[in-house]
Amino acid sequence: MNSGDRVRVTRGQHTHEGIVLPSSTPEHLVLKLSGGYNIGINREAAQVDVIESGAHEIESAQMETETSRISFDDSLPTVSLISTGGTIASTVDYRTGAVTAQFDAEDVLRAVPDLAGRANYRGNVVANILSENMTPSVWQDLAETVATEISAGVDGVVIMHGTDTMQYTAAALSFMIETPVPVVFTGSQRSADRPSSDNVMNAVCAVEAAKTETAEVLVCMHDSMADDACALHRGTRVRKNHTSRRDAFETLGADPIGYVNYADESVNFNRPVSRQEGKELAVHPELDERVSLIKFTPGMSVSHYETMLADLNPAGLIIEGTGLGHVNTEFIPLIDSLVDEGVIVGMTSQCLSGRVCDRVYDTGRDLLDAGVIELEDMLPETAVVKLMWALENTQDPEAQLSEPMTQEIQPRSVPWT
Amino acid sequence: MNSGDRVRVTRGQHTHEGIVLPSSTPEHLVLKLSGGYNIGINREAAQVDVIESGAHEIESAQMETETSRISFDDSLPTVSLISTGGTIASTVDYRTGAVTAQFDAEDVLRAVPDLAGRANYRGNVVANILSENMTPSVWQDLAETVATEISAGVDGVVIMHGTDTMQYTAAALSFMIETPVPVVFTGSQRSADRPSSDNVMNAVCAVEAAKTETAEVLVCMHDSMADDACALHRGTRVRKNHTSRRDAFETLGADPIGYVNYADESVNFNRPVSRQEGKELAVHPELDERVSLIKFTPGMSVSHYETMLADLNPAGLIIEGTGLGHVNTEFIPLIDSLVDEGVIVGMTSQCLSGRVCDRVYDTGRDLLDAGVIELEDMLPETAVVKLMWALENTQDPEAQLSEPMTQEIQPRSVPWT
Repeated sequence: MNSGDRVRVTRGQHTHEGIVLPSSTPEHLVLKLSGGYNIGINREAAQVDVIESGAHEIESAQMETETSRISFDDSLPTVSLISTGGTIASTVDYRTGAVTAQFDAEDVLRAVPDLAGRANYRGNVVANILSENMTPSVWQDLAETVATEISAGVDGVVIMHGTDTMQYTAAALSFMIETPVPVVFTGSQRSADRPSSDNVMNAVCAVEAAKTETAEVLVCMHDSMADDACALHRGTRVRKNHTSRRDAFETLGADPIGYVNYADESVNFNRPVSRQEGKELAVHPELDERVSLIKFTPGMSVSHYETMLADLNPAGLIIEGTGLGHVNTEFIPLIDSLVDEGVIVGMTSQCLSGRVCDRVYDTGRDLLDAGVIELEDMLPETAVVKLMWALENTQDPEAQLSEPMTQEIQPRSVPWT
Repeated sequence: MNSGDRVRVTRGQHTHEGIVLPSSTPEHLVLKLSGGYNIGINREAAQVDVIESGAHEIESAQMETETSRISFDDSLPTVSLISTGGTIASTVDYRTGAVTAQFDAEDVLRAVPDLAGRANYRGNVVANILSENMTPSVWQDLAETVATEISAGVDGVVIMHGTDTMQYTAAALSFMIETPVPVVFTGSQRSADRPSSDNVMNAVCAVEAAKTETAEVLVCMHDSMADDACALHRGTRVRKNHTSRRDAFETLGADPIGYVNYADESVNFNRPVSRQEGKELAVHPELDERVSLIKFTPGMSVSHYETMLADLNPAGLIIEGTGLGHVNTEFIPLIDSLVDEGVIVGMTSQCLSGRVCDRVYDTGRDLLDAGVIELEDMLPETAVVKLMWALENTQDPEAQLSEPMTQEIQPRSVPWT
């Protein structure tokens, strides 16, 4: 039996007929069924009969345009795989010698045979972009797709995403979706053609996390340089803190909320989780994109920024201030006038860890007097996303911005216990 | 003997006459001499005679305008204390219930009697500002003052600085000064009126570091939550990574270059250091302030930034891109045209750790084609300062920007060994 063979597989009471796809593990068999759906089958317990040998070329164009809609094994949970692009969904582009995004969800299943047998999969492609090209409108499409999948009854969702802006998209979905099931982002820092690639382990751990009883938006990525576990980060507290390391993602101001052990596939949370059966799915994808982030640096010219901001005409402004949440005193009248014009101005810190507090020093108190909103321990990147969201989905976006919703603001900067 | 008494102190062959300043340690006596200079004397070995009891009020205005210019103990090295303001030079402002900058270098010596007996001190006040108000022109004044002090023969320099923008000033002096002696920045995360204040330990450790044989610009701050050691960070690799913790400062992409043990006052470096007797002092304080930092976030509007940058008219632009050094592809034509107009555009990463590399993905290669300069593992904040400096002090600022000068760019992202 080889790739391309048409086979009939009998496993327990189920019989499937399809074409054998390439698989990197001897334990699993991946079949392309006549409807275009992929199925993973544990080979050990399966009876395989070759019907037609080497007769079928797999047409990738055919696979890319189709979506799996059927659960094949009643004993397994159903996980929706949604691809947005990025390295995890990429393969080598030999034309240029580097990596470009080319895969959809079906291809990921084919490329990661280790996913077979863990769940029934539904595949969706929302986008096929490197994540630096991600936009708020794709966040909206993604939220709608996730909601559709959850409505269709999946037990969990895994989103394949480029790592560069994963934290922004994860934050966006954290505000947009009230979910009764896990919504797990994962990606890859090293492409599949490299020996150190993290794509298989991250995808497998993300699927395992998506099968758990938790009900929130998570990011699942390597926890250390070793291949032993993935950490589960809350979507609003995670940050890509290294350009290339596989354990680049970190939770700031808290511990990760759990870990997936790669060897035994166990998922351990740092606190009790429940599927929250009573929790209703809701999606609020509206956004006002007129929010800018300005990182304060010494030497910034007030007069230039005055003109710039007049042109930018933002609805909201997130400042990445220094220390406890400061800017040069000369900027305070400008901020004052922006607030007077109705711009919501939120203050975060370029320290990234810790909490802004503008009641200690004169500069901070002057900022508060000018109408700046202290954003506590919210990450600047999360604050940009939240303000875009709050402007469209709440009656009082200014109040909502500093109101904790999903741990983007924590009562105190202490690790979870 | 009380504060305000005029006394004569004899210690070994030296005799000093002056007014007793308040001191929090019984081991040391701090005298205000007739010229306005302060001197710390180890009390144990000193003979003290009261000449006039309670006769003298200390006039703070008098002290603030004067500068110590004399070494008092030939057996001790001479350290120049330069104050720029900030929490370490602050005291409680009871009028508002919070903290405002009020101290100069002389006051720091009075406020930190533990500094007495460690060195002869020369005091200078370059500024008295909270560090969010620090400007490139103060960096220039500071560099000139440091150079003057080194020319006068001091063995080391300690700069008291607010913590908020200390990393920017330390980076600026790293590029501006070729120093044959240690230039050590220190500050305080907690003001002197708080039980957890770090001002005494940081100041003491900074003075000890300033007495060593190293010859570069360093930042000396608490290494951990404990009061056991300060870390010594290279001025171009240090970052304030927490808003309020005393161990907020971290070296990124390397280990600290050394530690000061507070208990035994020993200074240990991770590599050999030498005073580099042959190294000539040089100062190059010129700067072109027309450098902006832009942090890329999803949803940024190209058209708005096009207008903004046209108005800003920068000589240089540092981008804090995503991941390996990316921005949305839509921004590449704008960057291309900026480069064509002669703007130097450098790429760093908002990941902060790791190294940008724009040769892996299409977006990165397009950025390189547009003329963006990869800044390797340089911190974004350091890159802003370096570009300001390179524009004025080098024949080819574009080439200089990516040329390693003082470990702001490292050969590989590995810790010091």
